Amino acid sequence: MACSMSPQEKQAIDAIRVLSMDAVQKAKSGHPGTAVALAPVTYLLYNEVMDYNPANPSWMNRDKFVLSIGHASMLLYATLHLAGVKGDKPVTMDDIKSFRQLDSRCAGHPEFGHTSGVEMTTGPLGAGAATSVGMALASKWYASRYNKPGFDLFSSRVYALCGDGDMMEGITSEAASLAGHLGLSNLCWIYDSNKITIEGDTALAFSESVKDRFAAYGWNVLEVGDANDLPAMRRALDAARGADRPTLIIVESVIAYGAPTKAGKESAHGAPLGEEEILGAKKFYGYPEEPFFVDPQVYKTFADGLGARGARAESAWNALFASYRQAFPELAAEIETIAAGGLPEGWEEKVQAFPADAKGLASRSSGGKVLNDLAAGIPWLVGGSADLAPSNNTWLKLPDAGECLPGQIGRNIHFGIRENAMAAITNGLVLSGLRAFCGTFFVFCDYLRPMIRLAALMKIPTLFVFTHDSIGVGEDGPTHQPVEHLAALRAIPNVNVFRPADANEAAECYKAAMKITDGPSVMILSRQNLPTIDRGTFGAAAGAGRGGYVVFDSGKTPEILLIATGSEVSLCLQAAELLAAEGRAVRVVSIPCWELFAAQSQQYRDSVLPPQVKKRVGVEAAVGFGWERFLGGDGKFVGMSGFGASAPAGVLMKHFGLSAEAIAAAAKN
Amino acid sequence: MACSMSPQEKQAIDAIRVLSMDAVQKAKSGHPGTAVALAPVTYLLYNEVMDYNPANPSWMNRDKFVLSIGHASMLLYATLHLAGVKGDKPVTMDDIKSFRQLDSRCAGHPEFGHTSGVEMTTGPLGAGAATSVGMALASKWYASRYNKPGFDLFSSRVYALCGDGDMMEGITSEAASLAGHLGLSNLCWIYDSNKITIEGDTALAFSESVKDRFAAYGWNVLEVGDANDLPAMRRALDAARGADRPTLIIVESVIAYGAPTKAGKESAHGAPLGEEEILGAKKFYGYPEEPFFVDPQVYKTFADGLGARGARAESAWNALFASYRQAFPELAAEIETIAAGGLPEGWEEKVQAFPADAKGLASRSSGGKVLNDLAAGIPWLVGGSADLAPSNNTWLKLPDAGECLPGQIGRNIHFGIRENAMAAITNGLVLSGLRAFCGTFFVFCDYLRPMIRLAALMKIPTLFVFTHDSIGVGEDGPTHQPVEHLAALRAIPNVNVFRPADANEAAECYKAAMKITDGPSVMILSRQNLPTIDRGTFGAAAGAGRGGYVVFDSGKTPEILLIATGSEVSLCLQAAELLAAEGRAVRVVSIPCWELFAAQSQQYRDSVLPPQVKKRVGVEAAVGFGWERFLGGDGKFVGMSGFGASAPAGVLMKHFGLSAEAIAAAAKN
Repeated sequence: MACSMSPQEKQAIDAIRVLSMDAVQKAKSGHPGTAVALAPVTYLLYNEVMDYNPANPSWMNRDKFVLSIGHASMLLYATLHLAGVKGDKPVTMDDIKSFRQLDSRCAGHPEFGHTSGVEMTTGPLGAGAATSVGMALASKWYASRYNKPGFDLFSSRVYALCGDGDMMEGITSEAASLAGHLGLSNLCWIYDSNKITIEGDTALAFSESVKDRFAAYGWNVLEVGDANDLPAMRRALDAARGADRPTLIIVESVIAYGAPTKAGKESAHGAPLGEEEILGAKKFYGYPEEPFFVDPQVYKTFADGLGARGARAESAWNALFASYRQAFPELAAEIETIAAGGLPEGWEEKVQAFPADAKGLASRSSGGKVLNDLAAGIPWLVGGSADLAPSNNTWLKLPDAGECLPGQIGRNIHFGIRENAMAAITNGLVLSGLRAFCGTFFVFCDYLRPMIRLAALMKIPTLFVFTHDSIGVGEDGPTHQPVEHLAALRAIPNVNVFRPADANEAAECYKAAMKITDGPSVMILSRQNLPTIDRGTFGAAAGAGRGGYVVFDSGKTPEILLIATGSEVSLCLQAAELLAAEGRAVRVVSIPCWELFAAQSQQYRDSVLPPQVKKRVGVEAAVGFGWERFLGGDGKFVGMSGFGASAPAGVLMKHFGLSAEAIAAAAKN
Repeated sequence: MACSMSPQEKQAIDAIRVLSMDAVQKAKSGHPGTAVALAPVTYLLYNEVMDYNPANPSWMNRDKFVLSIGHASMLLYATLHLAGVKGDKPVTMDDIKSFRQLDSRCAGHPEFGHTSGVEMTTGPLGAGAATSVGMALASKWYASRYNKPGFDLFSSRVYALCGDGDMMEGITSEAASLAGHLGLSNLCWIYDSNKITIEGDTALAFSESVKDRFAAYGWNVLEVGDANDLPAMRRALDAARGADRPTLIIVESVIAYGAPTKAGKESAHGAPLGEEEILGAKKFYGYPEEPFFVDPQVYKTFADGLGARGARAESAWNALFASYRQAFPELAAEIETIAAGGLPEGWEEKVQAFPADAKGLASRSSGGKVLNDLAAGIPWLVGGSADLAPSNNTWLKLPDAGECLPGQIGRNIHFGIRENAMAAITNGLVLSGLRAFCGTFFVFCDYLRPMIRLAALMKIPTLFVFTHDSIGVGEDGPTHQPVEHLAALRAIPNVNVFRPADANEAAECYKAAMKITDGPSVMILSRQNLPTIDRGTFGAAAGAGRGGYVVFDSGKTPEILLIATGSEVSLCLQAAELLAAEGRAVRVVSIPCWELFAAQSQQYRDSVLPPQVKKRVGVEAAVGFGWERFLGGDGKFVGMSGFGASAPAGVLMKHFGLSAEAIAAAAKN
């Protein structure tokens, strides 16, 4: 070790190790072993390799580091602290000393938005690695749109630190395959091969050749035999920068390196090392015993390295951007709008209204048109589907939209049949400032659910487009018919679930979704045609923008409320006609987005759903779980009580009792 | 083509093709292209290769065929029909003619239990391939436990037919890695490399070397250049049988082979070919034009091949088993109990009760003890964790339980950090007659949710063990704290979600779960200690077996109901004490399994939750989504309204208002 590091390098690296061990020890909880082992890697990345200005961790063209092994969070916190990363929520020594305590910026796992310098929330294994592919793709997209001769504005590289868990998780395989396919040369994963997992030796469950697997994906694979060998690591990182495809650096490390008895043991993974081990390790490093000790020279080492380099880099970039603004004012304005998290002026006006039409069209079709209208107004709206673009209608047909292919960047992305990685990559695009969407069949939202949750946790506006939204799928049968998925998504905090009733609601819902910037939106669209409601006769679709609104009243004071979403709103309008013909005062309410509706004032909600009206029927071609909130004790639910079946959609709707007659009958009971 | 097939082989293969095309055409919906392309593969497997008796498709030692590309369902239905596969739900010609219609045995995608000869429900890509690993592992397990010198009772091989989608899905990567690790020599995947996906050429999104990737996993990889080349396919299948590890056969095929203009095109994937294409294809094959025509010779070809061979094989096996019963009566009885779907006598008595204990223990700990008690009584209870066995307490510690390692079979399985494949493999074990469980942290049930759904659809009793069930996780923070997962699981039809309140409820819940044979059960267990409720004073834990019951009444007629699950039941008992001290008549109800409770009589449910008592407080350290059903319009919910945070569990519980005081206050409002 000693021969490969200068005294100052060693001191800085040991400081990362010691802060990690001490913080976990004080918290009585955490994962010290990997942080200790990989300190040389983050030291090198931050202090020598990355174009990163610690004074401004949101500089747009910064290189990014993703700690996919989020449990080793102290590695990141210690590095960010010592490197002097500022921003509005810098890691202070007090934060480190209150690691894993309420309100500390050093949460158990890194949380995006909670701590300056944390590029994304990690912890769920594989998520970080997969998301880093989206960040790398975003960088390529920025370069493709904005770089001009003499103006290499965008050149950001993305590094992710991965562990055995990342290598085993399927999402990582999906993402790696796509990254190799696209040849993302600005992506580098560093795989910590420490041969230890929670159950013991990695070899208990994992004996594949990771090296050969990544070569099969088309990656550049390099090996470093010892995480402490800085020159070898430097050479590998240099080679990664020169490669024409993504690079995997496999690094052999010793978990809890330096701990007298726990080094190399699984006991060092997920629990404090204990005072004695820590003292032993400090002795081994030649480090003062005092907990949380940092020699001032360490801060200086980072300031002289990263600090100076990063300031120069951003300053040069700012100068370049100033000239760019002169030469390309419109593009520069776009970049500034993106950086500010805004949307172009007039984007909303591009969205066209749909004329009333009894035959109507599927909301996947109207939704597809709206998405294209939005894309016409928002040049940085990009996305794709998990091999279902023709079915999801998620293809951007604008001239020059282009597509991502090996060596080529466009706004349409062929994600392949890789739903979970698709969602992670889309999160990565959004984290990089783009507005991005991804699509699949609604039933397969289960495959990417972990990444919806992560978007919700990170409060980022990823847009999920799920078509084929109920038993209306028809012949494909129950494996392809969502019944529980609406409830399951509505249960996730901070997710906005939209299920528009017709084309104009689809337009309003999409517009509402684009305005939401602090959480993901999910667009649930039908396979089958939905009548385009005549808005001259019925309530204006703009009400969808408030989450719920009155579509129809047959009398002045409603006696019965029919409450529905999506395809069932038109059914309720038919049922209302039947009931009105019998002299009942019926109101039909559409609630395309429960979350937006819940965010309205009590007064507005009561005006839509008058509390005194207890005769209520909820209608949704899905399970009723969660509907009780609208129905109270006396209401009825018309919908599914179990899985669907394989038959034409119309047959199924009747078979499962989703008809105007059945709704009217329920209302009368 | 002609040269590699006898006229009878060609006639039988073309019959599979023609039935597939015609059925999709008549249904006006379906996926004809792949069925047409791969007819030679299923012909060969069934008529020449598999040990399978069509007269008894549930023969225990049969080879199994899994159509992982479930959308090509007609390939399977046509083959099963022509091969004369019986059982109680055989595919008739009428079923084929009513493909994708209500009540046809030929559903859009193959459904387990709906059609004889369908080994599992497929459609969600990757699920079939991953589940086949569990079937192969089960066969190895049976051989390991029951085979004796001279009695090679179990030797079943498993074949799965996969497509590009399977190869891209992460779950397949996970499963393939584990299958290679374990060296499952009885597993053979046939990968249809037809270079076509829904968005177009596979090369749009997929350019990795599947061959090299599987070699990296440790598989035996073979290639067949033309799906119509029977001799080459025969040689590959022969080689697979001789291999000491799993085999992947990569077969090049032409989608819709023989269709005049659509062969090799994505348009042949997911829609009927059209009359003209079908006529053209029939002409190309030299097949009569009449729709659904089958020459009687085809049935004879299968009867002479598969029928005769299968009858001989099962008959020989039955004779062997009769001798085995003489030599090993106890083991033979076990096998018969497994085949009948039963459990050993007295299994329940092995489960021990827990003494009252104010300090108590975590339900992951008590659950772990119960699981071991169950395993002591049920020799074919097997399972494992996604690298969290020491945390989930899912390790079977019984002497001789053993573990699965390369070349070694035991009852403990190291699944690795591969949640979705773990669940699929566990489904495969259960589909093979074993009672099997798998575990991970509750928050990561999102990673394997697609496979829980599939278990529910298949009505199989897979047991999922999820520990670390709430913000009680503490310091690991919101990425590791489930809040929406209870609601999300309760929304899935046919899933029994158990969240026991203490050790004795854990025992009752586990026993209830073992008795359920027509759907999966999910055990939700705490990280933190839970007091073991004194059952001398409080309601008997046996009530948990009915889903919900009264734990405590402070007065004769309750005025207030406190309703909770899991760790919050003890909190409610404390709150009840506070309220009782103020003279309130409080009842505490535990509802560890909503689904079992819903299945009780109205009378019983009303006796637990008297309808006239409107003052109700629901308490769960999770979001309240779905709780309205118990709370009515006047009830209050005490729980989470968003994501958790990183801090010690006790701090979080207070921070988020989960305290006896807060519950009592809510009850008083």
